[in-house]
Amino acid sequence: MNIPTVVSVLAAIVGIAVSFMILPLFVAIFYGETLACHVFAWVMSGGLFLCGATYVAMRRLARYDKRPRGLSPRDGFVTVTLSWVFVSLFGALPFLFSGAIPSLADAYFETMSGFTTTGASILTDIESLPRSLLFWRALTQWLGGMGIVVLVVAVIPLLGIGGVQLLEAEAPGPSVDKVAPRIKDTAKLLWLLYLGFTALETILLWAGGMSPYDALTHTFTTLSTGGFSVRNASLGAYPGAYLQWVVTIFMLIGGTSFSIFFLLYRGRLGDIWRNSEWRAYLLIFFLTTLFIVIELSARGLYGSLGDDIRHAAFQVASIMTTTGYATADFSLWPHFSQMVIFFLMFVGGCAGSTGGGIKVIRLVALLKLSLNEMRYLLHPRGVFTLTLDGRPVRKDLMYGIVGFFFLYVFFVLITTLVVATANYDLSTSLTTALATVGNIGPGLSLVGPMANYSHFPDHVVWWLSFAMLAGRLEIYTVFVIFSGLFWRR
Amino acid sequence: MNIPTVVSVLAAIVGIAVSFMILPLFVAIFYGETLACHVFAWVMSGGLFLCGATYVAMRRLARYDKRPRGLSPRDGFVTVTLSWVFVSLFGALPFLFSGAIPSLADAYFETMSGFTTTGASILTDIESLPRSLLFWRALTQWLGGMGIVVLVVAVIPLLGIGGVQLLEAEAPGPSVDKVAPRIKDTAKLLWLLYLGFTALETILLWAGGMSPYDALTHTFTTLSTGGFSVRNASLGAYPGAYLQWVVTIFMLIGGTSFSIFFLLYRGRLGDIWRNSEWRAYLLIFFLTTLFIVIELSARGLYGSLGDDIRHAAFQVASIMTTTGYATADFSLWPHFSQMVIFFLMFVGGCAGSTGGGIKVIRLVALLKLSLNEMRYLLHPRGVFTLTLDGRPVRKDLMYGIVGFFFLYVFFVLITTLVVATANYDLSTSLTTALATVGNIGPGLSLVGPMANYSHFPDHVVWWLSFAMLAGRLEIYTVFVIFSGLFWRR
Repeated sequence: MNIPTVVSVLAAIVGIAVSFMILPLFVAIFYGETLACHVFAWVMSGGLFLCGATYVAMRRLARYDKRPRGLSPRDGFVTVTLSWVFVSLFGALPFLFSGAIPSLADAYFETMSGFTTTGASILTDIESLPRSLLFWRALTQWLGGMGIVVLVVAVIPLLGIGGVQLLEAEAPGPSVDKVAPRIKDTAKLLWLLYLGFTALETILLWAGGMSPYDALTHTFTTLSTGGFSVRNASLGAYPGAYLQWVVTIFMLIGGTSFSIFFLLYRGRLGDIWRNSEWRAYLLIFFLTTLFIVIELSARGLYGSLGDDIRHAAFQVASIMTTTGYATADFSLWPHFSQMVIFFLMFVGGCAGSTGGGIKVIRLVALLKLSLNEMRYLLHPRGVFTLTLDGRPVRKDLMYGIVGFFFLYVFFVLITTLVVATANYDLSTSLTTALATVGNIGPGLSLVGPMANYSHFPDHVVWWLSFAMLAGRLEIYTVFVIFSGLFWRR
Repeated sequence: MNIPTVVSVLAAIVGIAVSFMILPLFVAIFYGETLACHVFAWVMSGGLFLCGATYVAMRRLARYDKRPRGLSPRDGFVTVTLSWVFVSLFGALPFLFSGAIPSLADAYFETMSGFTTTGASILTDIESLPRSLLFWRALTQWLGGMGIVVLVVAVIPLLGIGGVQLLEAEAPGPSVDKVAPRIKDTAKLLWLLYLGFTALETILLWAGGMSPYDALTHTFTTLSTGGFSVRNASLGAYPGAYLQWVVTIFMLIGGTSFSIFFLLYRGRLGDIWRNSEWRAYLLIFFLTTLFIVIELSARGLYGSLGDDIRHAAFQVASIMTTTGYATADFSLWPHFSQMVIFFLMFVGGCAGSTGGGIKVIRLVALLKLSLNEMRYLLHPRGVFTLTLDGRPVRKDLMYGIVGFFFLYVFFVLITTLVVATANYDLSTSLTTALATVGNIGPGLSLVGPMANYSHFPDHVVWWLSFAMLAGRLEIYTVFVIFSGLFWRR
């Protein structure tokens, strides 16, 4: 392993993340929150010093390396995984030092939940926290969301994890020496797009009556499909259909692959329509919303059809894109609607979005494979090519998808078992597992949209932090490090 | 489609199944159950006449066929699926005509649950039924269990469904004209083995204090991993550790691939030990039993360690082999143990056994594939062959397994949604789906081991009958008929 380079890259990433604490520091100054001011100033300066020193030392060490080496796949996995681990560790310090979250397990969980854009919270009274801390909490999601998009669009395809190389279909296959400039260009474009959407949603929410602070923090957690809110009642704290629809639309944008926006930018509308992942994504959204609207209106839950549609669309978008906001307590909805929500917990956003979960493209590919198998059963001697968006799917990509899907389901079941060690029932254990591994946030029963994660004992909280991380990094990135193969020479 | 031949084969299969009603008829005569006597006599003679007439007519029609044709894969799928549909229909008539189960939906469900060896029951008071009807109920499972073994070992590999061709690894690849004698030979051996085990278990249970009637009926439903009992309290009605251990062992035998017994017969013990499916099967059994024993004894549920082990081993064997007997109400166990049971609902028996579920071999193959993917991630330019029992796994078999696994999970979720339309919660809906698609029987909550399926409305009952059938016939057999491809020329 190329330790000097790995550590220097890590130090750079952590340093960048820590330097964003300047923003909550400003917020603390603005609102006159003295304690938070001190905490952010000290954590930021301390973190920057530490990262800077490490970076310089490691660069120097790397320079003395006799034969200069690049990063191997192995180094890539370690760097990506540890960057989330350490960023969350430094990010947790303000919560810990300010006394807002006195337990390390809880503070780490909350921050990991932020950077992985999960949105699961151990806080019982969110509004009691200083505004600067809540701003930081929302900002972790915004940073994590952007981080994952850059990672998935630009880095993971090079590492070949879980079949998301499909995204690359648009671009010519990368060769290793072309990587650096391509990553930089792509990342720059992504940041511009992300900033643009952030500005747009903030203005729309502000115009709809939110305070600038509320508008910005909710924008942070919408686009990143994170779901942290600065209000105890989540989005339910704001009355009126307008705000709810704006957020619904931006959650759907967050769950859309950023390559769709590239196509839009280049005016290739035909290609957008031919994108089978995006079509499936919209189809699932409309169909599941329809199902829920039918049950809600049949049982007359909200009085008017408009309200039924609004609540159903919001909740479907929230769970499917893995945001996790709540306006209505869907754990009180009739059971069929709850099961639709449960079903959506398996879906997730598009690959290359900020959304988590299994991802629509993988499900589309698996469904196509299953149907293709039927062709073979009927015509054993035939030859049937599996295609996606009109292009044949390479066998090795398909194997990546299959391995991912199986490990995902397996890991959800293991996580269910871990939660159950603290004597939680099926509904809570299973949906906790789905909500953390899928980076959604709320589940059903004791982790329902109006509940929180504060009641879990420490060993479960630590495991769930790990589960969020593994889910966020497409399972394989983290699992591969724990495999015997990784450590074998 | 070769309709005359398909229908004649169907008529033969249904005729054979119906002729087994002679046994409950004898039981009815023995116990002097007049109504049941009449019912069985009439249904059997009527069924035999109908099947005989159809068979003769169709053979004649087939003879006039200008160009004699064999059965295509398409014909195979229709024949297999419809044979279960019609056998269950005729099998349901005694329940219906005797008034024991007055609703057609329920009677059909109960019989389908029998022939698919599921063991889910809509009966609330089993012991109120005449003994001959309960005998027939147990016999349906014994017949269904044997039917599925013959089907899976001898027929399905030829159709190539869901990757169970792996079983064939032992035998040289079949060519189509060799099929008929091979099926016959294999089927004969299987029947002998099945009869031998039946005799053995009956004697052991009888020796342990059961009445001959109870011993025989419970043997029928143990070996077939069915789980119907003639007692309201299931196996819990019989005190004593001896009977429970005998049943545990025979459930495990029922869930073992019959090819293991062939190997045993030929004295190839080394091959048995190298069989990765069977090793995994035993490993899962021992590990999950251990987990449950630890929790049960930590919480002191049964007083002594011996009782903890006995109850845990029994319940693990019961769910894993998809039998579904109960001695303890595991839905009252602490939640971790319940989740282990839930986890086992995904596993199932070995391929080529009477057990249902996903099957151990498929999970082993998928796990191996997932780990193999890690090799590719670490060494993108390497070539790593997926092997099972030391032999490389063909890509098309792996695709079959993948398609099966995905459709299985998908179908479980769809069935969960269907159950939830009747407003059942997650725990009930999901475990009902798992218990029917996996041919297990009991689930958790309202379908727990001490509960039953009587409370479901008709549309759910019909769907669950379909779900049991689809699960039993390895999903693809049934699904392929509903695909557009099937009906296209």
